Amino acid sequence: MTTSPATLSLDQLSIDTLRLLAVDTVQKANSGHPGAPLGCAPIAYLLYHKLMKHNPTHWKWSDRDRFVLSNGHASALLYSTLFLTGYPDMTLDQLKSFRQWHSKTPGHPESGEATGVEVTTGPLGQGFGMAVGMAIAEKHMAAVYNKPGFNIVDHHTYVLCGDGDLMEGISHEAASLAGTLQLGKLIVLYDDNLISLDGPTEWSYTEDVLKRFDAYHWHTSRVADGNDLAGIEKAIEEAKAVTDKPSLIAVRTIIGYGSPKAGTNAVHGEALGAANVAATKKFFGFPEDQSFYVPDEALKNWRQAVDRGKQAEADWNKLFDAYAKENPELAEQFKRSVVNKRKAGWEKALPTFGTEKKIATRNAGNQVMNAIANEVPELFGGAADLTASTKTIFKNSPHFAADPAGRNVFFGVREFGMCAAVNGMAAHEGLVPYGSTFFCFSDYCKPAIRLAALSRAHSIFVFTHDSIALGEDGPTHQPIEHLMMLRAVPDLTDYRPADANETAACWRLVLERNGAAFMALSRQDLPVIDAAKVDVYGGVSKGAYVLEDAANPQVILIGTGAEVWPCVEAKKLLEQEGIAARVVSMPSWEIYDEQSAEYKSSVLTRGVPKLAVEAGSPLGWWKYVGETGGVVGLDRFGASAPGPIALEKLGFSAANVAEQAKKVVKGRG
Amino acid sequence: MTTSPATLSLDQLSIDTLRLLAVDTVQKANSGHPGAPLGCAPIAYLLYHKLMKHNPTHWKWSDRDRFVLSNGHASALLYSTLFLTGYPDMTLDQLKSFRQWHSKTPGHPESGEATGVEVTTGPLGQGFGMAVGMAIAEKHMAAVYNKPGFNIVDHHTYVLCGDGDLMEGISHEAASLAGTLQLGKLIVLYDDNLISLDGPTEWSYTEDVLKRFDAYHWHTSRVADGNDLAGIEKAIEEAKAVTDKPSLIAVRTIIGYGSPKAGTNAVHGEALGAANVAATKKFFGFPEDQSFYVPDEALKNWRQAVDRGKQAEADWNKLFDAYAKENPELAEQFKRSVVNKRKAGWEKALPTFGTEKKIATRNAGNQVMNAIANEVPELFGGAADLTASTKTIFKNSPHFAADPAGRNVFFGVREFGMCAAVNGMAAHEGLVPYGSTFFCFSDYCKPAIRLAALSRAHSIFVFTHDSIALGEDGPTHQPIEHLMMLRAVPDLTDYRPADANETAACWRLVLERNGAAFMALSRQDLPVIDAAKVDVYGGVSKGAYVLEDAANPQVILIGTGAEVWPCVEAKKLLEQEGIAARVVSMPSWEIYDEQSAEYKSSVLTRGVPKLAVEAGSPLGWWKYVGETGGVVGLDRFGASAPGPIALEKLGFSAANVAEQAKKVVKGRG
Repeated sequence: MTTSPATLSLDQLSIDTLRLLAVDTVQKANSGHPGAPLGCAPIAYLLYHKLMKHNPTHWKWSDRDRFVLSNGHASALLYSTLFLTGYPDMTLDQLKSFRQWHSKTPGHPESGEATGVEVTTGPLGQGFGMAVGMAIAEKHMAAVYNKPGFNIVDHHTYVLCGDGDLMEGISHEAASLAGTLQLGKLIVLYDDNLISLDGPTEWSYTEDVLKRFDAYHWHTSRVADGNDLAGIEKAIEEAKAVTDKPSLIAVRTIIGYGSPKAGTNAVHGEALGAANVAATKKFFGFPEDQSFYVPDEALKNWRQAVDRGKQAEADWNKLFDAYAKENPELAEQFKRSVVNKRKAGWEKALPTFGTEKKIATRNAGNQVMNAIANEVPELFGGAADLTASTKTIFKNSPHFAADPAGRNVFFGVREFGMCAAVNGMAAHEGLVPYGSTFFCFSDYCKPAIRLAALSRAHSIFVFTHDSIALGEDGPTHQPIEHLMMLRAVPDLTDYRPADANETAACWRLVLERNGAAFMALSRQDLPVIDAAKVDVYGGVSKGAYVLEDAANPQVILIGTGAEVWPCVEAKKLLEQEGIAARVVSMPSWEIYDEQSAEYKSSVLTRGVPKLAVEAGSPLGWWKYVGETGGVVGLDRFGASAPGPIALEKLGFSAANVAEQAKKVVKGRG
Repeated sequence: MTTSPATLSLDQLSIDTLRLLAVDTVQKANSGHPGAPLGCAPIAYLLYHKLMKHNPTHWKWSDRDRFVLSNGHASALLYSTLFLTGYPDMTLDQLKSFRQWHSKTPGHPESGEATGVEVTTGPLGQGFGMAVGMAIAEKHMAAVYNKPGFNIVDHHTYVLCGDGDLMEGISHEAASLAGTLQLGKLIVLYDDNLISLDGPTEWSYTEDVLKRFDAYHWHTSRVADGNDLAGIEKAIEEAKAVTDKPSLIAVRTIIGYGSPKAGTNAVHGEALGAANVAATKKFFGFPEDQSFYVPDEALKNWRQAVDRGKQAEADWNKLFDAYAKENPELAEQFKRSVVNKRKAGWEKALPTFGTEKKIATRNAGNQVMNAIANEVPELFGGAADLTASTKTIFKNSPHFAADPAGRNVFFGVREFGMCAAVNGMAAHEGLVPYGSTFFCFSDYCKPAIRLAALSRAHSIFVFTHDSIALGEDGPTHQPIEHLMMLRAVPDLTDYRPADANETAACWRLVLERNGAAFMALSRQDLPVIDAAKVDVYGGVSKGAYVLEDAANPQVILIGTGAEVWPCVEAKKLLEQEGIAARVVSMPSWEIYDEQSAEYKSSVLTRGVPKLAVEAGSPLGWWKYVGETGGVVGLDRFGASAPGPIALEKLGFSAANVAEQAKKVVKGRG
């Protein structure tokens, strides 16, 4: 770190330092994406050095501006920027360990790995979608918390995205929603470089992007030269001035700017190679033979972010203290919400359901949500145009588009966009977000559910109409493989309650445990477990439990969700034939797998034949029932017919369960 | 079927007959969607009665116009239209059995259930996406087959869609792609009724749809009154005249037109109820007390479609016969392709790979595709902007956007749109379509993969970078749950070849077997099985086979894909310790499950301890390894590191496989 190219302005020197750090980072790993960092460094510099409100040494300050690198493959740009601005855990050594085992600098940014990484990105379009969720969270929290003179929630969400993000369907869902919701503090910088991995964008992507975003009611503008710092800054300032529309700024950059491969797809996704790295350094007037070269003046310039950040947070802390004096309850709610803590004793508001009336678990879910609404005011979400069916709505709250303090979001028919927004709200902190649709359409949500699990986000996905029992809508709407699909995702907790009281227990666990979770709820009415006789929460909190036992069971019937009930009926039929059966309700595989061997053997006792009953793919059940056990499941798609008929015809009657149980018993006997 | 309302024109009478048939159909089932049929009946009438080229009594005529009901919940409209136009299997009894067990009239249209249903729809947006694929197929086949004076491929693809379709992200991917590909024969009629399930569209959907489609380079127009037959017809004729752009016609309809609930979300998704049905009939001047009432004149008018269709096909047959005389080879290719038959002996072109050089299965796949290219000219597809990585490209063919006779489609970063287009091409008939991306992004494709399986479409999905072995890109790009996710889908064939020769065998099976299939291919180089010693095709065609055996195996090591190789190495290590091991390669669960019990026990012999090795979720393996078996799998997300290090650290070394095998052997001993 000695002299610097004398002819450069401090701005330019700082930007080129960033560029070449990213280039060296990729080159050292011999893997990664140098093209976008070379093109976009001026944008990163402007944001992190000048425009964004952020505190590198205390990153988690709640009122910071958020930055989302939606084109996550440009991770070297983000990591290099975090190093230069002084995020303490982002060292030069970390840059040198880019994409290596156990570094904080994985190939694509992962939240939780390094401070300053707001969300996990890489799967294209999802950063954009999460940013919409962050901007929703900001707008809602501002409406809930801010008071005249006290804008304690007042920050922007910035996104850098590429062509790939905007080709993805989720960009449409997210952008259309953001326009409708008038998210004025969302500002997207579009790296408009005319190149995608396969070649020139004209081969596959000819749309007029600005016109498209105009159609979504966004503020749009264009900067003709990605190296025009003043132009980019002016465009961002204009975007900030438009407060009732999100903004898209298309910045025409040159991918791989300054390298011999500039402007071609060859510079997108692989290290430049030593000769090209040297040529690139030469282009920028940097020493060709030095790697990870950081001129002192450049570093000093970048590191001003540290003091600026400290001052900004100190100012905010003063504001918040004054606010807290006038609004002690809200301040308390704010403080615990942004660290994802519930109000003490909130769970006392959970209802207990009586056995006198059957109730669908989707309806029970609605009662639970509304019973806890005042105790968990941070619970916030909605459905993908299925509110009337999924019942995930707060009765006494307006909808967010009409009133930003409202807790109900009508997400529209945008399942993927909804779930990404949920992830973004979770990442923002301060809300416990949920999204809802039919279980079959968890297909559309899958990429976002995976990202929630990978990010360990406290995202809640409520899926109703959870089996063929939904009936007439038929196979296109009847989930089959979905429970297995989601159970196979690491770090995602599954919940499929058997009744209303298990539903209350599931909601309690979802709110007590951090991390990503989904619930599968029934369309059809179901009997209610007698909470006076069964410790339902105790059982559900172990993932599986004995619902009804026998002295020396000859068979264990394992049911989940609605299929617990034919197991209960089958137990009676088996008893009439002198066969003793235990019924196990297993609402969560993930939680059951966490239990002690001792507990497990008290429930799914080894040596006792087992039959699992679940109206879905049997694929994963053999782990629990063993080679000699049986599964009443579905190896086929469903059928359009009234729900009870579909269930009966496809094997989910008590009679068939008893029949199959007898086969299992004989197989062992 | 007696008199008709005297005051109505024949057109109006015919349209109202359709409306009320659909209303009665829904009412009889007490389930379904009457709103869209009431609003859209004039569109259906215009298309099926006047504008479309179709032959009800011989539906599969290859040059028919295609109609896709993307808003599949309006199924009663389609079924009633098919009945009225004379599709022989769509009887009044079928309408009366709407949504009942084993009817041809399921809740949402399913291809294969009734003639005239081109594709399965209901999951919103996918009909639109499939229609783009159909229009691609038409354009490509026209370029391949048509000769001056012989336009044997010359038809339109019509779509009816609703707000929900256009809110879905896939509509963006599909529309942007269609604009780029200049699909001039794609005409979309948008049921612009201002209502979605949750309420007025203004609550969630405020975009300017026409401007958005203008931005995609579509021809757009608006019809202000959905009952204005002449206006709709004029708009369609204008759309047909624009041959270098797809067309979107927004037709302002009134949902539930004529019913007391008209214009509200209450009429969207449930039967009207007897009183409202009567009021609706009264509104249209139809007898209130008659159900399924079809005035004779109306039926006679509608059924003109039968003779018109016969004549149209007869004319085309004449044209084709003349064409066949001049172009016998092309005619032959056409005839077999449209019934999805391969050229006899095509498989002789498949390459055999030597053992001298390691090769990644993605690269082997490329060699296979190019080796058979001339013998299977109907093989057509591309990748979602990852051609350079997935290697799914024909070397000697231009790309489709540049030349419609080209076989390579650059789909852009649009995985879901690509897969839906693949399904549409398969439904169109005449091509064997494939789409390709990284395996991890099968998440984005999941809804279309499910629909392919449900439709039993011959859609091929080629996924590469199929495990953590892809390395540095990290957990966001490393598939974990994906094999299980897709194996849980009914009627979908899985292929994960262990080497280049298995890859050739998989491609052969994919082309020999009809139905939906996916391949998971490696990024990394792999050894090659010696085809002189092993009957690779014979083995792969049974799903699993003994690759290396021992006299009295004490353990069976089951590998799939790349993980077969650590099993082969582990066998040697175990032998050094006196443990005899069998190695089974198991490229396809679906095919293995179809085999006889005898064959299965010759491979995965009962009583012999088993260890499965697969770099993915272990969830479903217990079916094959049993309670006492083991699985070397991944219950966690991957890690960003060079591939060999990620594999080693996460347990996929020969040493660890041998270690785990010994535990399994001991567990039984």
